[in-house]
Amino acid sequence: MTSKRLGRWTVHFPGSPRLVSAASVVGPKEGEGPLHSYFDAIELDPMRGEMCPEAAERRFMEDACSRAIQQLALTSEDIDIFLGGDLLNQVITAGFTARSLQIPFIGLYSACATFGAALALAATLVDSDWVTTALVAASSHYQTAERQFRYPIELNVQRKPTNQWTVTGAGAAVIAKQGQGPKVTHATIGRVVDYGLKDTNDMGCTMAPAAADTFLRHLADTGRTPGDYDLILTGDLAAYGSKMFRHLVKEAGIGLGNKHQDAGQLIFSPQQKVGAGGSGCACVAVVGLGYVLKQMAAGRWHRVLLLPTGALFSPVTHLQGESIPCVAHAIVIEG
Amino acid sequence: MTSKRLGRWTVHFPGSPRLVSAASVVGPKEGEGPLHSYFDAIELDPMRGEMCPEAAERRFMEDACSRAIQQLALTSEDIDIFLGGDLLNQVITAGFTARSLQIPFIGLYSACATFGAALALAATLVDSDWVTTALVAASSHYQTAERQFRYPIELNVQRKPTNQWTVTGAGAAVIAKQGQGPKVTHATIGRVVDYGLKDTNDMGCTMAPAAADTFLRHLADTGRTPGDYDLILTGDLAAYGSKMFRHLVKEAGIGLGNKHQDAGQLIFSPQQKVGAGGSGCACVAVVGLGYVLKQMAAGRWHRVLLLPTGALFSPVTHLQGESIPCVAHAIVIEG
Repeated sequence: MTSKRLGRWTVHFPGSPRLVSAASVVGPKEGEGPLHSYFDAIELDPMRGEMCPEAAERRFMEDACSRAIQQLALTSEDIDIFLGGDLLNQVITAGFTARSLQIPFIGLYSACATFGAALALAATLVDSDWVTTALVAASSHYQTAERQFRYPIELNVQRKPTNQWTVTGAGAAVIAKQGQGPKVTHATIGRVVDYGLKDTNDMGCTMAPAAADTFLRHLADTGRTPGDYDLILTGDLAAYGSKMFRHLVKEAGIGLGNKHQDAGQLIFSPQQKVGAGGSGCACVAVVGLGYVLKQMAAGRWHRVLLLPTGALFSPVTHLQGESIPCVAHAIVIEG
Repeated sequence: MTSKRLGRWTVHFPGSPRLVSAASVVGPKEGEGPLHSYFDAIELDPMRGEMCPEAAERRFMEDACSRAIQQLALTSEDIDIFLGGDLLNQVITAGFTARSLQIPFIGLYSACATFGAALALAATLVDSDWVTTALVAASSHYQTAERQFRYPIELNVQRKPTNQWTVTGAGAAVIAKQGQGPKVTHATIGRVVDYGLKDTNDMGCTMAPAAADTFLRHLADTGRTPGDYDLILTGDLAAYGSKMFRHLVKEAGIGLGNKHQDAGQLIFSPQQKVGAGGSGCACVAVVGLGYVLKQMAAGRWHRVLLLPTGALFSPVTHLQGESIPCVAHAIVIEG
């Protein structure tokens, strides 16, 4: 079966690749949050017994991948391709995880939208019979992200209300045509949107225009409205970014009703002192694979739009005075 | 048409996606090398009038992409997806280039094998009719890579004979089914190979086992021998890595004859004081798109295997005592 394009941005998958397994592994803070009962594993030691947080993050991704594969009673030998990524320089979490897995590997980078890029590509490869089974994964870790993008946590730099808290954890899923699980029916690949914003302490608002851009293109390509979805889940816009996203969508004449939620707002409670909410590649991955899929399985939602968002800057470009280019990808999942 | 898998690692593209345009833009040192007459543009100012080398690298990638699109008398509006990557933290060259291009974008990271990953994915997406036209690009820059991975060049740290010189430049190509140009017929996606080597001053030897692994799997999957190719072009193993690659392949009972050349050895002459040879994402991209495609067009070679290689480490993992995981992807191009 061949895929069918809808407009320039969206593809429909007639072969209906399915999420045949999914695993979410999180750290202790996420385990204390409102979604704690939906995660497959909560690790109480965020360092996982390792000396460096980079090695710890790897353990989260390796665990999530192992669980996703083992749920199918398969081994990594049975998986045809591994598409994964993370926030760390040189995508080391996915690269080192690929070393453990020994599955043909392509590393992806769309910042916190990486999980969306991986899902879209995996669905395409499975739908077009290039591969039979594809493993996707994304991870982040509070300690690795904080020291790479901001300051060493030992400095205890005061956080602003718009700051977000990087989720510690990893999500992994296997996509295949054969098997049980919700279908991936559409993907809309985003373009890079840059409103000239430069505030790295407010990534949610920085990414919101990209989320709105991809979302509006998705609706235009598919001829759908928000009413066609039971849930529209943005990646990690958090409190302020979500507000801006709703505003931009409203300005375009689209009413979201009560359909929109944000993974960064769902994963932590306000009492957890996380600023505006959660962030990181793992945020939408663990909320999507943990919470959303289980709610879909329970019949609460039937058709969900995942809208992971990412900021494609680096500390170097920020110091060089550049604004922050952002991207969002949209993936439709049907139960 | 659907793709046909050969073994676990290799895919055959029955729809014959073609490289319908290709552009290579390099810096002054590359322009003084033996391949100077094959590049589409040689920029005499490696800084491109910019204040920072990161901004300069972006100019190289933007130029290569513009040229590849303009050769077809198209605009970026006509291109369905942009798959690109580079060596810099947070893949900023490709991310910022995507901001200029406004084409739906997925960032890739396979270190210096990124161009291979991009070509393989682009060929798949075109072959499976997910997109009609895909733009691929990869870049590197001596000054950005040196200061990110090693030392500020102002320190003038003494180089070792096994050190390689990062190519300044970018290669870009458009893949489509309609149009003239050599076909992409097969791709073999590599697994991550790590022989426990840790010497960041000898990346060629570190990457050679991954090149050999992917190459041997490619031969096994396709039932081919080196004799079936007119040229087997490794990415950037350079002098020492090429020697190790030949040795590993020979140990596996495969004779390469005179079929093997390395992009890192071709791009500079020994008189240019580049240590073991060239490296960087741009190395195999500009040698492949500049030199190899033009030689194919002239009838010298008919069937070429591109074998870009990449080292998936970061300075952080190196300082943490980790060895260097590597990957290589193989792409068959037929004139």
